[in-house]
Amino acid sequence: MIQAKIAEILESDQFLQEFMVKGWVRSFRSNRFIALNDGSTLKNLQCVIDFENTSEETLRRINTGAAISVKGTLKESQGSQQRVEIEVNEIKILGDANPEEVKYTILSPKKHSLEKLREQAHLRVRTNTFGAVMRLRSKLSFAVHKYFQEKNFHYVNTPIITGSDAEGAGEMFRVTTLDMKNPPKNEDGSIDFREDFFGKETNLTVSGQLEAEAFALGLGQVYTFGPTFRAENSNTSRHLAEFWMIEPEVAFCDLDGNMDLAEDFIKYVLRYIVENCKDDLEFLAERHASEDKLKPKAERSEMGLLEKINFVLDNNFKRVSYTEAIEILKNSKPNKKKKFNYIIEEWGADLQSEHERFLVEKHFKCPVIIFDYPAKIKAFYMRLNEDEKTVRAMDILFPGIGEIVGGSQREERLDVLKAKMKELDIPEEELWWYLDTRKFGTCVHSGFGLGFERLVQFATGMGNIRDVIPFPRTPQNAEF
Amino acid sequence: MIQAKIAEILESDQFLQEFMVKGWVRSFRSNRFIALNDGSTLKNLQCVIDFENTSEETLRRINTGAAISVKGTLKESQGSQQRVEIEVNEIKILGDANPEEVKYTILSPKKHSLEKLREQAHLRVRTNTFGAVMRLRSKLSFAVHKYFQEKNFHYVNTPIITGSDAEGAGEMFRVTTLDMKNPPKNEDGSIDFREDFFGKETNLTVSGQLEAEAFALGLGQVYTFGPTFRAENSNTSRHLAEFWMIEPEVAFCDLDGNMDLAEDFIKYVLRYIVENCKDDLEFLAERHASEDKLKPKAERSEMGLLEKINFVLDNNFKRVSYTEAIEILKNSKPNKKKKFNYIIEEWGADLQSEHERFLVEKHFKCPVIIFDYPAKIKAFYMRLNEDEKTVRAMDILFPGIGEIVGGSQREERLDVLKAKMKELDIPEEELWWYLDTRKFGTCVHSGFGLGFERLVQFATGMGNIRDVIPFPRTPQNAEF
Repeated sequence: MIQAKIAEILESDQFLQEFMVKGWVRSFRSNRFIALNDGSTLKNLQCVIDFENTSEETLRRINTGAAISVKGTLKESQGSQQRVEIEVNEIKILGDANPEEVKYTILSPKKHSLEKLREQAHLRVRTNTFGAVMRLRSKLSFAVHKYFQEKNFHYVNTPIITGSDAEGAGEMFRVTTLDMKNPPKNEDGSIDFREDFFGKETNLTVSGQLEAEAFALGLGQVYTFGPTFRAENSNTSRHLAEFWMIEPEVAFCDLDGNMDLAEDFIKYVLRYIVENCKDDLEFLAERHASEDKLKPKAERSEMGLLEKINFVLDNNFKRVSYTEAIEILKNSKPNKKKKFNYIIEEWGADLQSEHERFLVEKHFKCPVIIFDYPAKIKAFYMRLNEDEKTVRAMDILFPGIGEIVGGSQREERLDVLKAKMKELDIPEEELWWYLDTRKFGTCVHSGFGLGFERLVQFATGMGNIRDVIPFPRTPQNAEF
Repeated sequence: MIQAKIAEILESDQFLQEFMVKGWVRSFRSNRFIALNDGSTLKNLQCVIDFENTSEETLRRINTGAAISVKGTLKESQGSQQRVEIEVNEIKILGDANPEEVKYTILSPKKHSLEKLREQAHLRVRTNTFGAVMRLRSKLSFAVHKYFQEKNFHYVNTPIITGSDAEGAGEMFRVTTLDMKNPPKNEDGSIDFREDFFGKETNLTVSGQLEAEAFALGLGQVYTFGPTFRAENSNTSRHLAEFWMIEPEVAFCDLDGNMDLAEDFIKYVLRYIVENCKDDLEFLAERHASEDKLKPKAERSEMGLLEKINFVLDNNFKRVSYTEAIEILKNSKPNKKKKFNYIIEEWGADLQSEHERFLVEKHFKCPVIIFDYPAKIKAFYMRLNEDEKTVRAMDILFPGIGEIVGGSQREERLDVLKAKMKELDIPEEELWWYLDTRKFGTCVHSGFGLGFERLVQFATGMGNIRDVIPFPRTPQNAEF
């Protein structure tokens, strides 16, 4: 007898072999056919029971959601739905699922809304959709590590708790062990953070970039892959308060090299899931297609999920400067006809999501990299171009989800960096160590950040970012 | 001309080929020999300059720490220190390092204490020791993912911000966006957390286990690998406030299977670094040996670093029940002669680090797994044995570092779990979702937690845990 996972049994040719398999009942029909799932694959294993030789008590306990153990023989299936099935010799109920209680949960066999699934996030991984999304997320994570390790990048764990609030990427969460009811105070009434755990104010990181830079300027090429945080009150389908970010950083690499790396990386990881998540991707593609049909015609996708992924794999990302992009937008129909909410009037304007989508979905019809943005709308650490107006920044825009990557060549010149920090009132004492990296063997270097959940959204076709992370954290919600 | 990393050039046989390489000067002697490092490997590339044809200004700027770019021809080296070298045709200074400033940093060419390196954690990755530790840490991380992915475990990102404080693994950090100077209060004077970002009290997670369990009971086998936190005022060489933890969780797996998994896993990842980090490991082994010589004889290791790793690879972990372990300790010399700080008098005593080290280093002289601990000293979620006194817990103890793994079979019986929670005053409302997993198809399942930094310490021989993580977080310290 072989103890095996369903993924293995479904591929097996060992007919007449006895297998032992454990999993959860997805359905039981005609007192004969159990659809069993163990999480190893989307597909269920059909287990056929000889109900005449099975006790009534057992039959009564084979309910949707129950955990069971089955011993049986591998047979070719007579049904058209599956190649093989298990003819059950012995069945044990390991853990019951009372139908009277199951009916109030998302385990019950009917269609549940994504909202309802979110309320039962501890159980939703037992549905086809979430099983598929979470398996795919896992494979995609591994592809990230595999890509960088094969290229001899070093993985670096930058700190989650940070004493610096100069990163400037967004609002931060405070981390403290002080008694909030009665915190120690200074004479002027402000909180005395010297008595806090770290002896100073600390927050949750919004980015590991600055620390990753310090590491790149020694180890050459590094990447992070860890959680980052935004305390922003954004209740949208694109924002999470806690999300995972990938941030590679490369010494001796300019913005062109950075764009090459980002494009190569994204194609590699998408290719990996196309090759390694066939069943789950096909299921998600069908799901995506049938969801799409319910939408008004104008909102439907032009491409199916697999088409969209293959489109990214097969096409070069269009590289266009911010200045060119502004010209295109200024002369575009929606701008002239004032269909945009924000009309583009002059160079220097920040691009809104509606502009990004126009460029990607209507104008170029492919992934777009916009580079050389106005210095005024970008962060202090980005390298100033010779025109002294633009910086070597780049954003990658994807159909359907907008910005998926933001990156730049970093300002490696100590004097220029200091001047910029002064202009923005960033105290040098806060970032003494960061400035140090420009004092001792500074060099051209670049990197980017990719929000992992956005990538999972793109790869799974899920519309809401809360449905691609196990337990989403959003305003007013930290359940589980 | 080939642009290449030093790791590649050092392995190359393309003699007379012109290479371009960029990196940082480690040393420059006799106005001729540059030792260049780019982080791709521990080893430096010797670049030989024709100083008669190099400008004085350039020669003056080739200082320790400077970033340079070199074009030159690959030659067999005349020196005995290296197989190949680069005969320089062209050299460019990319970023200077002023010797007058370098001399105050750890980049200066002399031996610096680990304490001093820690104060300059942003630069320490440019030393041999930290370069080696961080490359090895990266490879070890990848081995973790590779192991579980090859075994078809699914990677799951459990939440960092948690609304539950029932995990019970230790003191927690508060996460908040409330104005601490003037927080909203309830009528009774307590803080009104309904106005906080998540609408309730939230903390940084101490473990992803409970969420991982929910996922295992649907996906079958999962693992986490993410940051966890302890707000404990432990200023020791073994504790961090922020550290990375690996937590696999497996459905239909009992404690024996759990022990098998942990042992197999640890051996796999250690074997991976032995095979993939040869240079760095040898360097760290030499370092370990020479540090050891400085210690008083009684404190020296019986084994070198490589010996210790191979010893773990070559031996079965000794499995011994808590009850047996107590008998051994009770009858041991240090107990009878009252040499232990905590004398073992009766069954039920918690094992201290001195006892663990005795069992591992003196008695069994190999890694030890202790199982079936008294229920009283272990967590609420561990499965009660039939004796109703012990639980199916296991700890793995390693020479030199003590506990490296803590795990258990989980209590899968709803009634027993509820009774235990009641006994410990853990409100059911807090963990309603966790209890749900025992209502719908519960089953035997097990998992363990491994503190990643402890493993890195073991594999690198570094004595202080602050020296195996890029930017350590400890009481009174959140610099960088």
